[in-house]
Amino acid sequence: MHMPGAAPSRGVAYAEGRYMPLEEATIAMLDRGFVRSDATYDVVHVWKGRFFRLEDHLDRFERSVAGLRMTLPLPREEIAAILHGCVRRAGLADAYVQMALTRGVPPPGTRDPKLCQNRFTAFAQPFVWIANEAQRREGLSLVVTKTQRIPPEAVDPRIKNFHWLDLTMGIFEAQDRGADVPLLPDRDGNLTEGPGFNVFALHGRTLVTPDRGMFEGMTRRSVIELAPELQLAVEERALHASELARAEEIFLTSTAGGIMPVSRLDGAPVGEGRPGPVTRAMHDLYWRRHEEGWLATPVDYEGG
Amino acid sequence: MHMPGAAPSRGVAYAEGRYMPLEEATIAMLDRGFVRSDATYDVVHVWKGRFFRLEDHLDRFERSVAGLRMTLPLPREEIAAILHGCVRRAGLADAYVQMALTRGVPPPGTRDPKLCQNRFTAFAQPFVWIANEAQRREGLSLVVTKTQRIPPEAVDPRIKNFHWLDLTMGIFEAQDRGADVPLLPDRDGNLTEGPGFNVFALHGRTLVTPDRGMFEGMTRRSVIELAPELQLAVEERALHASELARAEEIFLTSTAGGIMPVSRLDGAPVGEGRPGPVTRAMHDLYWRRHEEGWLATPVDYEGG
Repeated sequence: MHMPGAAPSRGVAYAEGRYMPLEEATIAMLDRGFVRSDATYDVVHVWKGRFFRLEDHLDRFERSVAGLRMTLPLPREEIAAILHGCVRRAGLADAYVQMALTRGVPPPGTRDPKLCQNRFTAFAQPFVWIANEAQRREGLSLVVTKTQRIPPEAVDPRIKNFHWLDLTMGIFEAQDRGADVPLLPDRDGNLTEGPGFNVFALHGRTLVTPDRGMFEGMTRRSVIELAPELQLAVEERALHASELARAEEIFLTSTAGGIMPVSRLDGAPVGEGRPGPVTRAMHDLYWRRHEEGWLATPVDYEGG
Repeated sequence: MHMPGAAPSRGVAYAEGRYMPLEEATIAMLDRGFVRSDATYDVVHVWKGRFFRLEDHLDRFERSVAGLRMTLPLPREEIAAILHGCVRRAGLADAYVQMALTRGVPPPGTRDPKLCQNRFTAFAQPFVWIANEAQRREGLSLVVTKTQRIPPEAVDPRIKNFHWLDLTMGIFEAQDRGADVPLLPDRDGNLTEGPGFNVFALHGRTLVTPDRGMFEGMTRRSVIELAPELQLAVEERALHASELARAEEIFLTSTAGGIMPVSRLDGAPVGEGRPGPVTRAMHDLYWRRHEEGWLATPVDYEGG
């Protein structure tokens, strides 16, 4: 395997049937993917030259596409080949890799989404960390926002989508309150998710994570699968903000950063105010499994 | 005034500081306006060479921009000049004119929306009719969907936004049920809006229109202002689906088409199953006011 060393590239995109520098990639202004946010996407990461859970991500992307009644213009193998092609051309060992399908541009004079030709795009860029190095070491400061997450009765959160204005206004709310990241509740005060991550609360030897109103992230799934190795039980159920406030430890999960400790909640320390032992153990296990090649697909750096 | 005749153009856009054919206009793939639907917009129409309520639309656009904590990169007069410029270059007498502000592309390695440079774009294309000619004559078939509208506690609907997946899935639901257009309720069964339009129900001499959970459209406002001329009262309040089903007349309002009669609701006839006299009177008054130059701004077809 010819894995690249330092990666100077800002990234490579695939659109309209060809590869290009990511900063030159665009979508049509009239694509409903922009003007109606009529699109779905998925993000898979590459770590030390290997995709993590690539097949799981492709499975989920296909389900999202079907959920929005769209059709992939390419077979699954070609989509996988394009993701490899973006990472290869970007020369990245650690990458954030997005695939997206937009509804497309309606024929002139029409508004019917059924008449659009769906468009596939993808890109690879350097690995994205939601938390910076200090935050990963010391823990993040989290706030539960007033802004509620868009409910499943309006938009199915299991179909990964770009409807983020609630999450974006949550980011501003967190900044206003001197915190790092927001966590959005539903209308009953049960927690859902933050911008790009799921949440886990530790009570004794049990991890609790919401089961409704949020995207079912792949790192969340990995934690659920790894928990037994750490003698932890997992409960997927409603997690109220008041219960989160009593947690011994809190951590966030995301493809963009893995397992991220939370050390402050709404201004108060979580546990002793620093990353706890269970969070650290899960973090270490998650990355050790990466080293061991768990659910890994080596990037084809040679080209097909 | 040199007003164009037949308009062959598909439209003209303004982006990145220059004008271009609309079909060539794009936005950056990494603009949060696409990948986080982090954007606001407004649509003003031109009829027979005149903008309708241009200043009201610009006022509202400025409020939406402030609501998302964004900053217009151009003064209001330049934005107005660009809208004129798009219509002039497109050679359109009747046009649908969109202005949009996207958050922009975060600097490499960052995710903070505050660090983005907001981007202004605009375009003019031929006037868009939500209802085709037969539908405008015979009335639309409307269904109240199972899909609920995104609630104001999650995304403020008064800030015009591209979060339309609920409306898009509503369009599919309407098609599945053999209807023309969907109307989305909130979680209590109170009606909000459909894709691009508001709704009015007639009871006696009173028009009822929802006051919560929907965008406050400019044609809705025009109807409220014109109602006294037709000796109609207007109530802005919760309108439950069960009350809509008892309406004597129903019509929809949109910049993309004006006043549009509804002749069937959930498969049953509305009133006598054809456009009623109050709907027709409001339709005629709305377009007569256009002819008279009410709130009109002539398009600068000569160039500044």
